[in-house]
Amino acid sequence: MLKTPAWAAPSATQPIEPFAIERREPGPHEVLIDIRYCGVCHSDIHMARDEWGGGNFPMVPGHEIVGDVVKVGDKVEKYAVGDTVGVGCFVDSCRHCEACKDGEEQFCSNGMSVTYGGFERTDGKLDKSRPTFGGYSTRITVDENYVLRVPGSIPLERAAPLLCAGITTYSPLRRFNVKSGDKVAVVGLGGLGHMGVKLAKAMGAHVTVLSHSPGKHDSALELGADDFVVTREEDAFEKNAGRFDFILDTVSAGHDYNAYLGLLRRGGTMVLVGLPEPQALAAGSLILGRKQLTGSLIGGIAETQEMLDFCAEHGVASDVEVIAMDQINEAYERMIRGDVRYRFVIDIESLRKAG
Amino acid sequence: MLKTPAWAAPSATQPIEPFAIERREPGPHEVLIDIRYCGVCHSDIHMARDEWGGGNFPMVPGHEIVGDVVKVGDKVEKYAVGDTVGVGCFVDSCRHCEACKDGEEQFCSNGMSVTYGGFERTDGKLDKSRPTFGGYSTRITVDENYVLRVPGSIPLERAAPLLCAGITTYSPLRRFNVKSGDKVAVVGLGGLGHMGVKLAKAMGAHVTVLSHSPGKHDSALELGADDFVVTREEDAFEKNAGRFDFILDTVSAGHDYNAYLGLLRRGGTMVLVGLPEPQALAAGSLILGRKQLTGSLIGGIAETQEMLDFCAEHGVASDVEVIAMDQINEAYERMIRGDVRYRFVIDIESLRKAG
Repeated sequence: MLKTPAWAAPSATQPIEPFAIERREPGPHEVLIDIRYCGVCHSDIHMARDEWGGGNFPMVPGHEIVGDVVKVGDKVEKYAVGDTVGVGCFVDSCRHCEACKDGEEQFCSNGMSVTYGGFERTDGKLDKSRPTFGGYSTRITVDENYVLRVPGSIPLERAAPLLCAGITTYSPLRRFNVKSGDKVAVVGLGGLGHMGVKLAKAMGAHVTVLSHSPGKHDSALELGADDFVVTREEDAFEKNAGRFDFILDTVSAGHDYNAYLGLLRRGGTMVLVGLPEPQALAAGSLILGRKQLTGSLIGGIAETQEMLDFCAEHGVASDVEVIAMDQINEAYERMIRGDVRYRFVIDIESLRKAG
Repeated sequence: MLKTPAWAAPSATQPIEPFAIERREPGPHEVLIDIRYCGVCHSDIHMARDEWGGGNFPMVPGHEIVGDVVKVGDKVEKYAVGDTVGVGCFVDSCRHCEACKDGEEQFCSNGMSVTYGGFERTDGKLDKSRPTFGGYSTRITVDENYVLRVPGSIPLERAAPLLCAGITTYSPLRRFNVKSGDKVAVVGLGGLGHMGVKLAKAMGAHVTVLSHSPGKHDSALELGADDFVVTREEDAFEKNAGRFDFILDTVSAGHDYNAYLGLLRRGGTMVLVGLPEPQALAAGSLILGRKQLTGSLIGGIAETQEMLDFCAEHGVASDVEVIAMDQINEAYERMIRGDVRYRFVIDIESLRKAG
């Protein structure tokens, strides 16, 4: 086993602090990755504080991982030592259910092995004696089939958030074939929203940011948005009724789905990627104008690779603020205040040096 | 003008009673129809009692109309005297908005002319001095483009409810391409639900009725359903989790959308055609399993014709209980109790004789 420096939440009520874990030597189909950067997702906070319940502690968060392959098992075919790679929200799945066969491993009927706070598999089954630890650590061992190739043209620290924020927004935009000329609205301008703007623009859409903060106007346009609507202005919903083909709703705070559905054209689609408390939905909001409301959850391995390649081709990357490992608790507080443009990324070198 | 016997609600608080209206002589593009049967839709009750607000009284309900063409304008091309025809939920629309051009007149941006309780058009615009009166009357004058051809093979009294209950359920089944082998659930077994079962079966689906009433088991199977689930049984939702490709939800009473969404497979779709009060929706119900929730509202003229032809081809018709005009108030009470299999249809001959 490989002794590996990490930072962990010892329990749901304690800050993140140094913690030593062990990584296994790569098996025949596995690669060992020296982690260089790890993005800080809002899920990390929810999980580390056990706000969704069922958390396994101590917990080493982090599922936006990029780094270099430093060792490969003898049957590995896809990667070689020196390759720049990424690991996203899961490191394994059952591989034989319908979802896995369809390349939608995120919906694995037997439960994916999430990158942290979950369990590795033994003989294909989740093994409760083998907790997963995430990217707040200097290295990780992962099966080659759950590893992504990171194109060299994407600055590495800006590639890390693509593994979660990128795929979360790319997948629904692709599923609904967002294309040149489509009128797309992105609700919320945080880690997910800023990727939604960049990706929808790269697909050729006319993009409008809907935000309750008038102060985000300039940032939205700098990111490439064509228009900006302040949703707390009295007539915002009336003035923009029926305007959009597609709405990507990234907001995790409670908000009125019916009001946003009113902004869709006939037959339009709104996709939820945030998880607020249950909200009141009027059937008429869907019936009148034949509208669709749906959700999306990250993406499968193949689609995540497609997204990375798309980002490389179109010059898309996350806007990030690089921090040292020991700034993580302060970063969490700033994220909760919405004080980040748009993603914190941990320079894992800082952890390796502190070792 | 043609003096025409009808029955109307004088106000929202009075029963339906005899009332004389006038129908116009058909204009160049219009046909005059002698009404033979008119279905009784649950909307008739809501409208006649002004439960949705904004009702125009006196109100002559009825939007499931079938009868014979008895006179045609000199420019009418589609119909001739003697043709058997139908009229559904609307009798006109603006004809130039995008929805009208797309054949989705039910979503006319300028407001369709609903068959009763709405307004005819003058120079294409809704004319508040010209209220529409529905099918609880012996004849009606309608533009030929808003008239349907009723295939002769469908027993006429059983064709009437197709004009609303039929198209309301046909349209979403078709939109989502329900086909042989698909696992379809129909929630609720009233006027809409019983048509949903018949139409989904005719499209080749494996159909399960979900109902809170165990007593509907035999009727569901008689209608052609392959299976029946009593939703108030404790483990109904757990046992049937992930089972259906498509759910047609016809229920107008409040119910938990999240529970029903849990019955869909990954990527499945639930369509609402009933209008309960707003219900709490958890984003996770859509995000986990990438599910879709949508609504549907009747159908356009072309699709309504397609539905009638489909019914003729597949031997589909409504199950009806024929009543005389003077039984209408009693019929409303029975409908509110759910005591009808599955649609009351007024024999307009009874009104003509009395008239």
